[in-house]
Amino acid sequence: MSDLKVLAISGSLRGASHNTALLRAARDHSPDGVTVELYGGLAAVPHYNGDLDDDHHLPAAALDLRTRVHAADGLLIATPEYNHSVPGVLKNALDWASRPKGASALEHKDIAIIGASTGNFGTARAQLALRQVLAATHSHVLTGPEVLVFTAHQRFDETGTLHDPVTIALLRETLEALRTQILSRRAPVR
Amino acid sequence: MSDLKVLAISGSLRGASHNTALLRAARDHSPDGVTVELYGGLAAVPHYNGDLDDDHHLPAAALDLRTRVHAADGLLIATPEYNHSVPGVLKNALDWASRPKGASALEHKDIAIIGASTGNFGTARAQLALRQVLAATHSHVLTGPEVLVFTAHQRFDETGTLHDPVTIALLRETLEALRTQILSRRAPVR
Repeated sequence: MSDLKVLAISGSLRGASHNTALLRAARDHSPDGVTVELYGGLAAVPHYNGDLDDDHHLPAAALDLRTRVHAADGLLIATPEYNHSVPGVLKNALDWASRPKGASALEHKDIAIIGASTGNFGTARAQLALRQVLAATHSHVLTGPEVLVFTAHQRFDETGTLHDPVTIALLRETLEALRTQILSRRAPVR
Repeated sequence: MSDLKVLAISGSLRGASHNTALLRAARDHSPDGVTVELYGGLAAVPHYNGDLDDDHHLPAAALDLRTRVHAADGLLIATPEYNHSVPGVLKNALDWASRPKGASALEHKDIAIIGASTGNFGTARAQLALRQVLAATHSHVLTGPEVLVFTAHQRFDETGTLHDPVTIALLRETLEALRTQILSRRAPVR
């Protein structure tokens, strides 16, 4: 059986982002049966505008995002916490991906949420806000394990490589749980 | 006494947006002592990127937004509801306005939230999500009246002019309440 493809989306555009570094670590330590690909195009996706959301005006970056999300077996989303919620840039991408009505790339998509912050709460509030949004999109969000990477700056070296064994194990466990959920939902009902 | 200046921000970029039309109506029917100015620059504010948030890289549109929010006596925000929450473009603007730490344009800003949808719930969920974000920014959000403009398409004419007297009265009442709150917070403590 071929590997499941998990598309990894970071809610931060910062070059030295801990959240993007977390996704790289998830890719580098992915368990058997799972291939993680980082999505690098979020910055290019313009602000959602209903006037552009048709076959004649759809921005290329929005189409690319929809196509990649549709093609993925699952998503791994790493969110920073801005003002107790998800960054606008991440919500914007989800708004594009969820449309048009009846053809949402997020509908019934299996998704794992993770997040990293330098503070003590590890994006707990942003992850809850994201969970609410992904309920609206009828996505299947993994309920555990929770990956709240607090004091993130202590867990990466100066090149952005994750060296904390607890977090590495948690990322592997998350991808294993995502794989199990994807496969179980595909199993034929007897 | 000169009029209080209320900056009106629409979370929708659509040309025929009901939310933008609602703000125009608020401007046209504003009560004595309040002048409403529509902010037209949201589309130009790029995605938040911490690498750009310093004196050397700050995008002109982000600076303009911060300057206008700082200068306003209060804000009137009209939000559509996308996936049970605020549009990414609106959250992105608030993310820029809330920074840098210690100089947030939203800190202690008086804000009224309104919203319009063609459905039956009038952006109730998006307004609650926005309220959560504006608690994080330490803004003073008006607790009432609530302006949940449901079945919005029935309340505007074909030119986008609000003709529903109940909604017009509610907008005036909201601006009056915002004015009262702004002035009361400025009153000297005896």
